[in-house]
Amino acid sequence: MSQNVDLVNRDANGLNDHVKVAFDDVIAEPDGAHSLPCVWAGAWLIFTCTKGCCYNVMSIICGFPLALLWGCQFAYITFYHVWCIGPCMRSFMIDCGCYRKYFFTCVQCCLGPICETFGLCFSNIVVRNV
Amino acid sequence: MSQNVDLVNRDANGLNDHVKVAFDDVIAEPDGAHSLPCVWAGAWLIFTCTKGCCYNVMSIICGFPLALLWGCQFAYITFYHVWCIGPCMRSFMIDCGCYRKYFFTCVQCCLGPICETFGLCFSNIVVRNV
Amino acid sequence: MSQNVDLVNRDANGLNDHVKVAFDDVIAEPDGAHSLPCVWAGAWLIFTCTKGCCYNVMSIICGFPLALLWGCQFAYITFYHVWCIGPCMRSFMIDCGCYRKYFFTCVQCCLGPICETFGLCFSNIVVRNV
Repeated sequence: MSQNVDLVNRDANGLNDHVKVAFDDVIAEPDGAHSLPCVWAGAWLIFTCTKGCCYNVMSIICGFPLALLWGCQFAYITFYHVWCIGPCMRSFMIDCGCYRKYFFTCVQCCLGPICETFGLCFSNIVVRNV
Repeated sequence: MSQNVDLVNRDANGLNDHVKVAFDDVIAEPDGAHSLPCVWAGAWLIFTCTKGCCYNVMSIICGFPLALLWGCQFAYITFYHVWCIGPCMRSFMIDCGCYRKYFFTCVQCCLGPICETFGLCFSNIVVRNV
Repeated sequence: MSQNVDLVNRDANGLNDHVKVAFDDVIAEPDGAHSLPCVWAGAWLIFTCTKGCCYNVMSIICGFPLALLWGCQFAYITFYHVWCIGPCMRSFMIDCGCYRKYFFTCVQCCLGPICETFGLCFSNIVVRNV
């Protein structure tokens, strides 16, 4: 978690790595068919500008309300996990730890001698180094 | 367990490691699409402040009653495990240990010679170091 | 992602690698059957010029509007993924992380003792180096 906003690298954790929307990610001419350079350059300019403008307009209009919404949402999620699920989980883990000990004793008691006796199969390994 | 409250590291045991709710954990712009720096910085500010405020309000209102509740709950769990389940478990383990020894002797007696004989299968391993 | 338009290599990411439309990708004479050199050369010229002209005309007429259209489309896709799906995904990942911990505790509790007991099979390995 960073304490300050990072204006350069905006996807440090790779959350949206799969969103590839640059011009050369979307439109590609194979070697056999190249349009005129001015057409290609113009299309690049139009695509990039349109995408930039539309995205900026949408993020200016919706970015702040959505940030507000997600802020509330994640405050609730954090609160719920920290103050409710966390202690429940710990209580469950304590019970499980207790049951594990009980179950381990039973299994050790019933299967332990058999397994240990089978271990005698490996008690007489002789290795000759040639 | 720490004797004093640790105000800095509040999840020393990693109980809520998976709760990642910082701004850069939640919202990420891939390289192809960056909104205006002021929009990004504003969204960061709004998200962080909203989340902080909401979480603080919720923890101020519910933190103390929930701490009281979980305090009672875990006091009961501790009491139950220490004074009831613990001694029961020890008594059970003593019985099991005794039975294990008896069963081990029987199994050793019946299967031991067979397993040891099978162990001769591994008594002629030749390892060539190349 | 490139900041500038690349006029030479127009398919840097191999998006349309499979679109092979050069003359020798389409028409090929095996060793047993060769037409007259002038026929072959003429066909090559006609094919290449026709393809180049038609493609250029179509790209000049439709390239700019389509670039505009796709620019809007991908701006919307980016916006949707960054500001809506990304946070939803993080919230889902938090829930999954919590469930993972719960499931891990259960499996540890049920299968752990059995696996540990089976491990006794290997608790008595004696290796004699001759």
